[in-house]
Amino acid sequence: MSLVVALSGGIGGAKLALGLSRVLPAEELLIVANTGDDFEHLGLSIAPDIDTLMYTLAGVANPETGWGRRDETWSFMAALEELGSETWFRLGDRDLATHVERTRRLRAGESLSAVTADLCRKLGVAPRILPMSDDPVRTRVLTEADWIDFQDYFVRQQCRPVVRRLAFAGADAARAHPDFLAALRRPDLRAVVICPSNPFISIEPVLSLSGVRDALASCAAPVIAVSPIIGGRAVKGPTAKMMTELGLSVSAATVAERYADFLDGYVVDHEDARSVEHIATRVFLADTLMTTLDDRETLARVALAAADELRR
Amino acid sequence: MSLVVALSGGIGGAKLALGLSRVLPAEELLIVANTGDDFEHLGLSIAPDIDTLMYTLAGVANPETGWGRRDETWSFMAALEELGSETWFRLGDRDLATHVERTRRLRAGESLSAVTADLCRKLGVAPRILPMSDDPVRTRVLTEADWIDFQDYFVRQQCRPVVRRLAFAGADAARAHPDFLAALRRPDLRAVVICPSNPFISIEPVLSLSGVRDALASCAAPVIAVSPIIGGRAVKGPTAKMMTELGLSVSAATVAERYADFLDGYVVDHEDARSVEHIATRVFLADTLMTTLDDRETLARVALAAADELRR
Repeated sequence: MSLVVALSGGIGGAKLALGLSRVLPAEELLIVANTGDDFEHLGLSIAPDIDTLMYTLAGVANPETGWGRRDETWSFMAALEELGSETWFRLGDRDLATHVERTRRLRAGESLSAVTADLCRKLGVAPRILPMSDDPVRTRVLTEADWIDFQDYFVRQQCRPVVRRLAFAGADAARAHPDFLAALRRPDLRAVVICPSNPFISIEPVLSLSGVRDALASCAAPVIAVSPIIGGRAVKGPTAKMMTELGLSVSAATVAERYADFLDGYVVDHEDARSVEHIATRVFLADTLMTTLDDRETLARVALAAADELRR
Repeated sequence: MSLVVALSGGIGGAKLALGLSRVLPAEELLIVANTGDDFEHLGLSIAPDIDTLMYTLAGVANPETGWGRRDETWSFMAALEELGSETWFRLGDRDLATHVERTRRLRAGESLSAVTADLCRKLGVAPRILPMSDDPVRTRVLTEADWIDFQDYFVRQQCRPVVRRLAFAGADAARAHPDFLAALRRPDLRAVVICPSNPFISIEPVLSLSGVRDALASCAAPVIAVSPIIGGRAVKGPTAKMMTELGLSVSAATVAERYADFLDGYVVDHEDARSVEHIATRVFLADTLMTTLDDRETLARVALAAADELRR
């Protein structure tokens, strides 16, 4: 037996997580999900990255948006709008069942990891999707005006505000999930894969938990990141805009620097070869744009091969 | 100005409430809704009779079922079933918006009456629908086995258990809504209309609140009930079955006896004339089966004419 631990945010990360799930036996993959963008909305506990991972691996994700469920209907939102309630966060009718069920069970005292495991089982997701923590961590964004909640920035304001800083409220007190830390200590750990998610809002909330960076630096297996930057641009989302606003250069190298204390290998698109010429980490060039299911599997194999090569 | 106060449960009562709303100016009608069958389900605060009244008066009720909304979709329930959650209480996608919004606002500290008033305004319901109380009252059913919650009896077990007794938990502490009691004290009160709802589970929870029976007995206007029994049978629901199980005869007269301490006039179907020959209350014979919208308006006019005649 061996184990691969993947750290992932939502849409981009979930593509590689799906690839890994298709090239590894289910029991050899542990996907650790960012919960920094979880929030409470309309009285419901919403966990966007967990849900995107869960729906993607269950084959029920909406292929157009990357988030939410396929074959979705929107009657709830239409009625909610009629009632004058908040409609900036789009909740599909099918998706809503996940939030209602999760909220009910969290209120009854179950942990987020237990609820997630059971929802995954019900949806037929074989690999384990583990929240980075059962304790609440909430990403906050310092804009030029004020600190605001992540989903306010990300969804309501469509990433328009200039980002000055990010903070992970609750991260000091939150404990990384014990199964996550235990996995990083396993002697048969084959690889840790940092999925091509936004480093600032999808991976760094995970890294902000006490003990995680040290555990990544000292684990038995190579830590491989896959760059979310292709050809000097972000594939999707605010990664590039955020880099600029934080005073960083928009390049694959910038992402590797965020992980410098524990990174062993970096999978970078052919287009970005020049940008990473001078980084300290071992680079593996590949086609990193994941359009088809084959692309996802191929990139997963590249990341695993990189780890296996570094281990030898 | 004058005022008509109507006491109502769900489906049957809402038919007459709709009739009253069409023959009276909005400001001359106050509909007091039973909240004894309200309950908490999946973490949501559900108020079936308020919603049936609201949807009926808004013209968005499901004409087939009498409860829920028309043009409904059921994606939420389908997804909830997939997640292995409870699906015995059917929540349509549009209907769900009402429960989510109500729950959110109750949790934020708003009263049920304030939330109801606002939802009615949003849905374009002109007459006021007032919960009988802002405090929780929960109808409980003593079956041959045990005390069970009303919705467990009514929906989950489809009224199959034999009913030995009914109780209204919380009624001792709950205060009748002050606007309800104030309305009954108005000198310009024209009529109180007890809608043709099940007396045991729709009207008696209202009557169980401290001060209500006395206020009905002493109010300035005639109190008129419309019989829910037609031709010795209930039009819909468990009224007749419940009467038998409670050791009462299934007749229009039995309902009048429940209201004997305050009833001034009783509107009864022609078919039931013999059954009410010996009751102490003044009887008005009419066609009480409400099939069309015209039927609802006609019966509303009959009830109001009965009150006006008794007042003279």
